[in-house]
Amino acid sequence: MEGLRACFGVLERTAYLNAGTDGPLPQAAVHAAAHELEAQARNGRTRAHFERRGELALALRERYARALGAEPADVALTTCTSEGIAVVIDGLGLGAGDEILTSEEEHPGLLGALAAARELRGVAVRMAPLREIAEAVGERTRLIACCHIGWMSGLRAPAQLAQLAVPVLLDGAQGVGAVPVDVRALGCAAYAGAGQKWLCGPDGTGMLYVSPVLRERLAVHRRGYGNLAEPGLGIDSPLHEDARRFDTLALSAEALASAVAAADVLERVGWQRVHERARALAATLAERLAAIGREPAPRSDTTLVSFPSRDPQAERERLAAAGVVLRDIPGTPWLRASVGAWNDERDLDRLIDALRTHPDRSPE
Amino acid sequence: MEGLRACFGVLERTAYLNAGTDGPLPQAAVHAAAHELEAQARNGRTRAHFERRGELALALRERYARALGAEPADVALTTCTSEGIAVVIDGLGLGAGDEILTSEEEHPGLLGALAAARELRGVAVRMAPLREIAEAVGERTRLIACCHIGWMSGLRAPAQLAQLAVPVLLDGAQGVGAVPVDVRALGCAAYAGAGQKWLCGPDGTGMLYVSPVLRERLAVHRRGYGNLAEPGLGIDSPLHEDARRFDTLALSAEALASAVAAADVLERVGWQRVHERARALAATLAERLAAIGREPAPRSDTTLVSFPSRDPQAERERLAAAGVVLRDIPGTPWLRASVGAWNDERDLDRLIDALRTHPDRSPE
Repeated sequence: MEGLRACFGVLERTAYLNAGTDGPLPQAAVHAAAHELEAQARNGRTRAHFERRGELALALRERYARALGAEPADVALTTCTSEGIAVVIDGLGLGAGDEILTSEEEHPGLLGALAAARELRGVAVRMAPLREIAEAVGERTRLIACCHIGWMSGLRAPAQLAQLAVPVLLDGAQGVGAVPVDVRALGCAAYAGAGQKWLCGPDGTGMLYVSPVLRERLAVHRRGYGNLAEPGLGIDSPLHEDARRFDTLALSAEALASAVAAADVLERVGWQRVHERARALAATLAERLAAIGREPAPRSDTTLVSFPSRDPQAERERLAAAGVVLRDIPGTPWLRASVGAWNDERDLDRLIDALRTHPDRSPE
Repeated sequence: MEGLRACFGVLERTAYLNAGTDGPLPQAAVHAAAHELEAQARNGRTRAHFERRGELALALRERYARALGAEPADVALTTCTSEGIAVVIDGLGLGAGDEILTSEEEHPGLLGALAAARELRGVAVRMAPLREIAEAVGERTRLIACCHIGWMSGLRAPAQLAQLAVPVLLDGAQGVGAVPVDVRALGCAAYAGAGQKWLCGPDGTGMLYVSPVLRERLAVHRRGYGNLAEPGLGIDSPLHEDARRFDTLALSAEALASAVAAADVLERVGWQRVHERARALAATLAERLAAIGREPAPRSDTTLVSFPSRDPQAERERLAAAGVVLRDIPGTPWLRASVGAWNDERDLDRLIDALRTHPDRSPE
């Protein structure tokens, strides 16, 4: 794994434990984007440029599909997790009398889409604890929209979701790339993921899996050149048959190339090894935190480890000054460490040492 | 203007006359993006990174606002013209019994949004010739959605649009950056523009002006972290008061920095000089084309010059092989040259020479 670690410049100086916000960006992703932009500036953005963009979109779709256990034809390219969530929630055409069931662990990116459905369409939104969400389905529930892995503490959505008749939309921002994902085994109708977190791509990239069954039911509100099968037909152009109909309207070649290069860094190691390594390190961190009196919040076998702090914001800043980057979770007593396959014991040592150097005491 | 021309590497070898598709990309825009990405790879995408992204978003909003004659608070950042159009057409909440009036010169990016409104909401869509669109308003017309400058031939929307009571959404893909724009003088409720065409920014950038009056009426269907005034409040977070509520969900720092750098290249010359120069060169080209028997299609005083070809696609390819880049307009007999302030008489000479070398004859 030293080879993987060496792909990330930030790890030379920093114990970077914040992939749950934004992953470390590999040098290869920087070079790929710069290469595309230089070619555009030199050659112009001509027909060859658009062909290149199309090839890169396909290449990224294939990589995202492999990370999701899906077919490329079922994967749309987005700019972020929130966009994919909005495509599904907008597209279902729910209204008054319908309900979306969600959990108490959701991120503003999902909550924003729920707020829009409630305010603009009169859809009821009901919350349940994530662990109990499968049992909370009611007669009016038309969609379950919740996290695959909770962003606050790394809890995992219950496996029973795969058995329900109600379609499930999973927010996979802390899932895909971090833990093994098989959208069919998860039984979800849709899975929205991020490109810039556990896949280490540039900001402004992401993915949306939509099952062939749900695809037929989902209205497409945003339709640009790339979503249309025959743009020349004007207002009567049909949409692409496959998930390209849901693609975001304008992803640049440089963003695509950069995301492809980042995914390739991880694929060279192999997703299975990436996942095993990250989860083992996260489990080690959880144990080490418990050993110094910082018992982590209840968690699943994931890559997030949240642990209590008397003043999370101040402690986060102190850790950052010591070269240890993680985040606090607003409104909770927690600091959250994100552990990737690129990390190693030295990063954990630095975190533990920094926590010990400034013990978490209340002001006297 | 030699200083401006020297900012664009593509002009060293190519008579690049295709800014109506994608502008030439200045070296400064390449360097700005690469600089951001290198900093991210080296330092991690930490809190400082997100602060930087916020600063760049403001910087770009200010530049777009200056190009539009608008206040920055009334300008949202988008990924492309089509996205801005969709935000407005989606947000109006029109339905059966309502009509959108459009022109016969529209681009698939606008037509896609109209198709969605018709198919998903039962909105009637009626077309009129662009020159007569102001007179075509009917009792059920709730929105006029048409081009500021037509993409096919550079025709300009009639000035009478400014006098109407019905709100007007202008597709400014061939307007902002190419010709002087003053959204108040245009009297439009909304103006959607592209960042990658006449502003020479990277693909995946764009803008949407929404008047304060329209803003109050426009529902916000897509709400991510950046659109919310207080994301910590979860589902109850209010939206930003200003146009940030309409911002696209995830623009990267590298795209923002690159677009800012490109706009700065043009602002250093000054928008007035940029516009005067481009339009004068376009007028010269129109005359020179007429003089060789290629009388341009009816046009306005804009930066597009469309002229007839017996086989536009074949002639476009022949011109490309001669280092002259322009486009054909599918479904029409036209080739379209886009003339920017970065072009000069040498580019026009190359086009005219190439056209003369292979006269536009029918196969014998």
